[in-house]
Amino acid sequence: MVHLPHLLCLLGVVAAGYEPTWKSLDTRPLPAWYDGAKIGIFLHWGVFSVPSFGSEWFWQLWQGANKSQYVDFMKKNYRPDFTYQDFAPQFTAEFFNPDEWSWIFGSSGARYVVLTSKHHEGFTNWPSRYSWNWNAMDVGPKRDLLGDLAKAIRTNTPEIHFGLYHSMYEWFNPLYLQDKDNNFQTNNFVREKTIPELYELVMKYQPEVIWSDGDWEIEDWYWNSTKFLAWLFNDSPVKDTVVVNDRWGRGIPCHHGSFYTCQDRYNPGVLQPHKWENCMTLDRGSWGYRRNAPLFDYLTIHELITTLAQTISCGGNLLVNAGPTHDGRIPPIMEERLRQLGSWLDINGDAVYDSTPWVHQNDTVTPGVWFTKKADTVYAMVLSWPKGDKLTLGTVQPTPETHITMLGYKNNAINKNSLKMKRVKSGIQVVFPPMSDVKSQWAWVLAMSGVTPTVRTSPAPTVMSWITAP
Amino acid sequence: MVHLPHLLCLLGVVAAGYEPTWKSLDTRPLPAWYDGAKIGIFLHWGVFSVPSFGSEWFWQLWQGANKSQYVDFMKKNYRPDFTYQDFAPQFTAEFFNPDEWSWIFGSSGARYVVLTSKHHEGFTNWPSRYSWNWNAMDVGPKRDLLGDLAKAIRTNTPEIHFGLYHSMYEWFNPLYLQDKDNNFQTNNFVREKTIPELYELVMKYQPEVIWSDGDWEIEDWYWNSTKFLAWLFNDSPVKDTVVVNDRWGRGIPCHHGSFYTCQDRYNPGVLQPHKWENCMTLDRGSWGYRRNAPLFDYLTIHELITTLAQTISCGGNLLVNAGPTHDGRIPPIMEERLRQLGSWLDINGDAVYDSTPWVHQNDTVTPGVWFTKKADTVYAMVLSWPKGDKLTLGTVQPTPETHITMLGYKNNAINKNSLKMKRVKSGIQVVFPPMSDVKSQWAWVLAMSGVTPTVRTSPAPTVMSWITAP
Amino acid sequence: MVHLPHLLCLLGVVAAGYEPTWKSLDTRPLPAWYDGAKIGIFLHWGVFSVPSFGSEWFWQLWQGANKSQYVDFMKKNYRPDFTYQDFAPQFTAEFFNPDEWSWIFGSSGARYVVLTSKHHEGFTNWPSRYSWNWNAMDVGPKRDLLGDLAKAIRTNTPEIHFGLYHSMYEWFNPLYLQDKDNNFQTNNFVREKTIPELYELVMKYQPEVIWSDGDWEIEDWYWNSTKFLAWLFNDSPVKDTVVVNDRWGRGIPCHHGSFYTCQDRYNPGVLQPHKWENCMTLDRGSWGYRRNAPLFDYLTIHELITTLAQTISCGGNLLVNAGPTHDGRIPPIMEERLRQLGSWLDINGDAVYDSTPWVHQNDTVTPGVWFTKKADTVYAMVLSWPKGDKLTLGTVQPTPETHITMLGYKNNAINKNSLKMKRVKSGIQVVFPPMSDVKSQWAWVLAMSGVTPTVRTSPAPTVMSWITAP
Amino acid sequence: MVHLPHLLCLLGVVAAGYEPTWKSLDTRPLPAWYDGAKIGIFLHWGVFSVPSFGSEWFWQLWQGANKSQYVDFMKKNYRPDFTYQDFAPQFTAEFFNPDEWSWIFGSSGARYVVLTSKHHEGFTNWPSRYSWNWNAMDVGPKRDLLGDLAKAIRTNTPEIHFGLYHSMYEWFNPLYLQDKDNNFQTNNFVREKTIPELYELVMKYQPEVIWSDGDWEIEDWYWNSTKFLAWLFNDSPVKDTVVVNDRWGRGIPCHHGSFYTCQDRYNPGVLQPHKWENCMTLDRGSWGYRRNAPLFDYLTIHELITTLAQTISCGGNLLVNAGPTHDGRIPPIMEERLRQLGSWLDINGDAVYDSTPWVHQNDTVTPGVWFTKKADTVYAMVLSWPKGDKLTLGTVQPTPETHITMLGYKNNAINKNSLKMKRVKSGIQVVFPPMSDVKSQWAWVLAMSGVTPTVRTSPAPTVMSWITAP
Repeated sequence: MVHLPHLLCLLGVVAAGYEPTWKSLDTRPLPAWYDGAKIGIFLHWGVFSVPSFGSEWFWQLWQGANKSQYVDFMKKNYRPDFTYQDFAPQFTAEFFNPDEWSWIFGSSGARYVVLTSKHHEGFTNWPSRYSWNWNAMDVGPKRDLLGDLAKAIRTNTPEIHFGLYHSMYEWFNPLYLQDKDNNFQTNNFVREKTIPELYELVMKYQPEVIWSDGDWEIEDWYWNSTKFLAWLFNDSPVKDTVVVNDRWGRGIPCHHGSFYTCQDRYNPGVLQPHKWENCMTLDRGSWGYRRNAPLFDYLTIHELITTLAQTISCGGNLLVNAGPTHDGRIPPIMEERLRQLGSWLDINGDAVYDSTPWVHQNDTVTPGVWFTKKADTVYAMVLSWPKGDKLTLGTVQPTPETHITMLGYKNNAINKNSLKMKRVKSGIQVVFPPMSDVKSQWAWVLAMSGVTPTVRTSPAPTVMSWITAP
Repeated sequence: MVHLPHLLCLLGVVAAGYEPTWKSLDTRPLPAWYDGAKIGIFLHWGVFSVPSFGSEWFWQLWQGANKSQYVDFMKKNYRPDFTYQDFAPQFTAEFFNPDEWSWIFGSSGARYVVLTSKHHEGFTNWPSRYSWNWNAMDVGPKRDLLGDLAKAIRTNTPEIHFGLYHSMYEWFNPLYLQDKDNNFQTNNFVREKTIPELYELVMKYQPEVIWSDGDWEIEDWYWNSTKFLAWLFNDSPVKDTVVVNDRWGRGIPCHHGSFYTCQDRYNPGVLQPHKWENCMTLDRGSWGYRRNAPLFDYLTIHELITTLAQTISCGGNLLVNAGPTHDGRIPPIMEERLRQLGSWLDINGDAVYDSTPWVHQNDTVTPGVWFTKKADTVYAMVLSWPKGDKLTLGTVQPTPETHITMLGYKNNAINKNSLKMKRVKSGIQVVFPPMSDVKSQWAWVLAMSGVTPTVRTSPAPTVMSWITAP
Repeated sequence: MVHLPHLLCLLGVVAAGYEPTWKSLDTRPLPAWYDGAKIGIFLHWGVFSVPSFGSEWFWQLWQGANKSQYVDFMKKNYRPDFTYQDFAPQFTAEFFNPDEWSWIFGSSGARYVVLTSKHHEGFTNWPSRYSWNWNAMDVGPKRDLLGDLAKAIRTNTPEIHFGLYHSMYEWFNPLYLQDKDNNFQTNNFVREKTIPELYELVMKYQPEVIWSDGDWEIEDWYWNSTKFLAWLFNDSPVKDTVVVNDRWGRGIPCHHGSFYTCQDRYNPGVLQPHKWENCMTLDRGSWGYRRNAPLFDYLTIHELITTLAQTISCGGNLLVNAGPTHDGRIPPIMEERLRQLGSWLDINGDAVYDSTPWVHQNDTVTPGVWFTKKADTVYAMVLSWPKGDKLTLGTVQPTPETHITMLGYKNNAINKNSLKMKRVKSGIQVVFPPMSDVKSQWAWVLAMSGVTPTVRTSPAPTVMSWITAP
Repeated sequence: MVHLPHLLCLLGVVAAGYEPTWKSLDTRPLPAWYDGAKIGIFLHWGVFSVPSFGSEWFWQLWQGANKSQYVDFMKKNYRPDFTYQDFAPQFTAEFFNPDEWSWIFGSSGARYVVLTSKHHEGFTNWPSRYSWNWNAMDVGPKRDLLGDLAKAIRTNTPEIHFGLYHSMYEWFNPLYLQDKDNNFQTNNFVREKTIPELYELVMKYQPEVIWSDGDWEIEDWYWNSTKFLAWLFNDSPVKDTVVVNDRWGRGIPCHHGSFYTCQDRYNPGVLQPHKWENCMTLDRGSWGYRRNAPLFDYLTIHELITTLAQTISCGGNLLVNAGPTHDGRIPPIMEERLRQLGSWLDINGDAVYDSTPWVHQNDTVTPGVWFTKKADTVYAMVLSWPKGDKLTLGTVQPTPETHITMLGYKNNAINKNSLKMKRVKSGIQVVFPPMSDVKSQWAWVLAMSGVTPTVRTSPAPTVMSWITAP
């Protein structure tokens, strides 16, 4: 029966296993699939996709912060009394084809998808019993967006794990605002809304990622996060495979969770001691779809691959955000970026999936070269074709066994794909093949076996400390 | 602080006074204003005023019962996915002028007004913190309909008491449906919704009538009614003047409450042992505004006065329902009926306000004559002008002191308003004045002093047992 | 073939008969049905029925005259760019039931109906080929409102003649404005729009009244009116029965036409030398439906009957205007007035239909008494019940044959309905029966035979000069 | 005065110059700018941009042809009575920024722009006096889309010529359908609509391209095309620079006009004897914006450049169509293609602008190589990088003076950009530089001086016969 866990939890009956403390929860190994997946797709979809103007924070920026850009937009285009809630009936989603979406995601090379189940506006993309008349079944799409996408992904692209984003707070929910007015000495909102809907989501959709957000105004004791996570890890239907991020209360991000997100577009550029994720956007300016985004606000494919290389070299996963439209489409410019990424991964995926960081993250001589490792192969992701076709690396030392190839290059003439190279003062120099013989575009990957790292003269970064389950 | 009562209540701290049992609550005397008021106006206004088709039960009849009339209406006029919630933004109320409403109500002679704070659809006409995004401030009118009307009535027509209707259940609220699925062994809905909003309503608007409804699917133990009423009668800001009806749980109507409503349009025709109310409609077919109501579905003024006479003769109050439109108007046909009623009461109000039932309720010889009493005057409300201008009454016996006048008739010629009369076999015969000298229309009232009732041969009805506070 | 007349007309081929001059057209006898009909119903229905605010001149008052009432209404309730044309899709007419309308009109006692085929806004209530995308078939109702009503009336109430209103000018039609800018030296608008649509209307719907309007900015030579009328009277399918009003160009009203309307609500109070019509409104303030009309803006039935009596006594017809709603309903308050009028006519119609003016129009001694005549009976319509039940008339002299009855009064007691009367100094005094024996309400009609008019001391009004066809 | 030409024309007063016959009109030289411009942008924007589903023929396919795809779309998403005209208010264009559009067009390398002034739906994108209530000022955008774009282009990008598309027929215009029913023996539609609006367009906006369409159902005598063109070429304000296409009546396309379009996406692949234009679309499936177009329906930049090369080699201009959205945006995927085209032309424009066809159009040995010529340089546009970096051409013969460079390639090392080449049996072999030194993407241009064409063994194509004005 669906509600048993909820009831048990309220009664304080938690099965043996993790305690509802961070100390205990932090001992849980990271489910292996997540570290190997490397690339996920983030989807911000909600009522904000209707105005699709400025930001998915439209409501807050308009009526909370009274930003003139938003106030003016509303004045110019809507009748005086128009409220944010009036947008909901226009969230029509008539072109939403979850099968097509799953095929696009499959072609992108991503291995997990994270959909906003509910953003700070409080609108639930599933028919929640705790959000009556403010959910995608009652108004707008008139369907279970979350359930329909979960089903399509699991059916069509089983290599992709399905996860969801969930905002703990809701900007304008009067129950929340009342708790806040009470200095969070009451927690009706959490008891009647946040926690019940989290249980509902897990029991109904079995997400393998729970990407929490909207936690920052108050600590985790208000949110009751650890109790929920203990249940999630001990007794939920996804206890073996689920991963969660770190946004579970003020002070928690970058300190607890299966993986750390720290802040939006976190991309530290150096190796991190704990598994982390760089969540970033194809549209530089917004997570939700923005009609007023010109082409230049979209990342180029080169920028996207650059970010990927930087991220995975330093131990992170990349969560690439796309904002679907109010009528249910992935805009073609986003589809193109995702498919371009997929075409690059078709050739260069060996350097990405299931890789781990190498001793060095990027090269000391040539900028724009980032490393990963798998078994005894070191991969150098080279973001610019070297001048004169010769690449010098300062972090790599050749050995007699050194053998270097380029992914997507096959020297048919001599049936031998090794690239020419030589030891140079700073390390090694590799001769690139003729560009016209190479399949990869935008960035190129050297697969190097039999090489050793140059010894650091500066202290090495902290060893990554997370535990990966077998 | 607004929530203290709530908290206290939840903690079981109830001040001395009435116990939360019907036995105790039933001992409270009826506040005197209510019995004297006799006439109230009932207003059904909500999202159902947008389709304004068929009935205020539109949603249930359409999507609950799938009645073809409603299903067809939607198919013919709306896009396939249109939901009931999509009507809400069209509840615009742009012509809602609460001052004008109060003046109309004042002109009708009514002494109290009862507005739907929330009907079974769950949409609250005030900005409830327990009905986010499904209330009149967030969608549709964008104003506090309840508060604005309360203020206008209290300012403009202080003789009118302000009250409100409130539905306990909500047809499609998933919290309610879940409790129901659990055979009401859970009561999350009552705890998180029904009761908090009742407290909110009382504290914020100080209603003097709480007209409960939607109680019938389950007993009062589920609704927690007696606890709320004990607080209402002991500690609320309206504890001295508030009256409540009888719809507080299955089995309660006609058994407990300040006044009984028993069933809609209850009009028993015989004296009742407890104060009661006849709630009825100007539009025979609906409580909410119905665009498709032809003229013949509206009561004539004669029918309305007839109902009034029958009701008050038998100890009831009359609650006359009007359905405002989605854009905030009282349709002129309803305004006309209300003003006609008021013009009749201007002449004949002595027979109505502060009257009590007489020994007899209606005449035994001439049908359509109903009695009330005040001090030593007996009033006969005569619904048809008698043939030959002579009215025979079988329930009234003359005495030497008998003096009979007609309200609104003044015999200027002889400066003496007494009507001629004589004893007849069955009782008394009164000669009506020339109709062209009479001010009243539709029905005429004889004020008779010095008369005695004919002795009943059948058993008298039970004496009315309620207690009126001084 | 539909267009033959049009072509013939353009070719200047006009069949023998009336010349396209007023001199010739004025010789046409008035078709008899019209004078006998006495009462028509006027219907103003169009896009203005959507805002239904202020007036059917909404567009002009808003965007032509920039009246603040209208400008503010739009600012408050619509988005900045909303245009009048944007109202059209909301002209839904979903409740339009022409059969029901015809039954209401039948019950009102009216003998003709005049619907706006097109008001000054230019929107045609029929699918005109000259008003593409601005007609009731293409936008809004999506049906032929005019044709559907014509059919229902002809089927259900054959005693009612079907007619139509047509505006020659259109406030904002650029073709018209261009002609106007050219000082009407061009007439593209008339050639391409006004005249073709008049032919289309006549050929398609055979109206028996053409109620022209919107003519006042320029003389008839611009409008080409006489040519159209010559065709209408000589060759059209309604040449034998059609009547037209007098608004066919500046200077024409009150001078030419089957009947004169002179100005809106024309009610001269004295006998007119030419058949005329008093077009007036149930809603004092507007011809189109006005949501913001309070009850007091509607004529009472007494005011309506008063106007009827005044009008027909002076030789006029009464054209009673009602404004249907955007969704196709006759509001109940209007239905009530129409049915009240019908109930009065059921009793008193003898004084109305087929009557002619008498020598005197109203009484010289008692105000509020108006006369008509039929054969040798003179009818006195008495608008107030006389004090003391005695009515003195100064314009009527009794003779030995004088016999007076009251319509709707039957003296059952003595089986003789004559009223008592006597000669008095000023003329005659009639004793009214007991009001309670009388069926009529609001006004009472005396039917007097064998009476003679008091001789006038002031000059008699001009004899009415129009000719009625046999 | 705006209408003088119109009046003069109607009076048959045509100034000396071209006669209204094709024989005479065909003698007019092609204004030189057009042939040199080579690339234009076509914009299909109208009410069809609101459903933006399937095709800009939406209306016809839905309600003319009753295609199930369209019928179902409407059934599923709109209420039963929804008409095409009801889409117009949603043509909001709130993001339409003509300056931004002009900058995008400028960056694309295009030298003219052709906007639909009116498509077959009849909706005019300018406030035409001949299309009241069915134009962009009265409904929808509430602005002069055409005028605003013309002004922005002329101000911001003076190198771009402004032109317009105009449909002669209108699918559902009743005036047109009536003429058609009359076997075109009447021409009210042309007289009152088509021709007046063409004059209005020319006088108001001075377009330098008139791209006529919708002519095919009937010959030019119905359309009165030659009379209009004679006026356009003799007396209009654009008589010196305007060019017109060939769609002026059944049988005219591919036979008369400044340039021939013959049929949509005309791309004959061989040299044409008359100046022509290949109008084609970025979205393979539609001219108007299609929300349901997946990425794969958009041309890749390689396909676009391929089409350009084929077209100009054979003497055509390329008119690249983009479909703006209902809210006034150029979708990013289209902006990207246009900017990619512009970046290619920045490098390779010498081969395009002001070029003429060469003796050979494409190579006989290596497919995908297309030629143009300017002065003594022959340009080879090479669509695929040759295998082994060696390109063999069969149509080119070297001479001692032969000098070959690649546009966008500069050999810094030896400061000499000549490419190595040698005579081979079939003609010439050119050695490409290292791809990594080359700036151009997608296609590469060789500029060859001192070469001679291989002599044809097959007959040469007809010499191009059109005359270019100096």
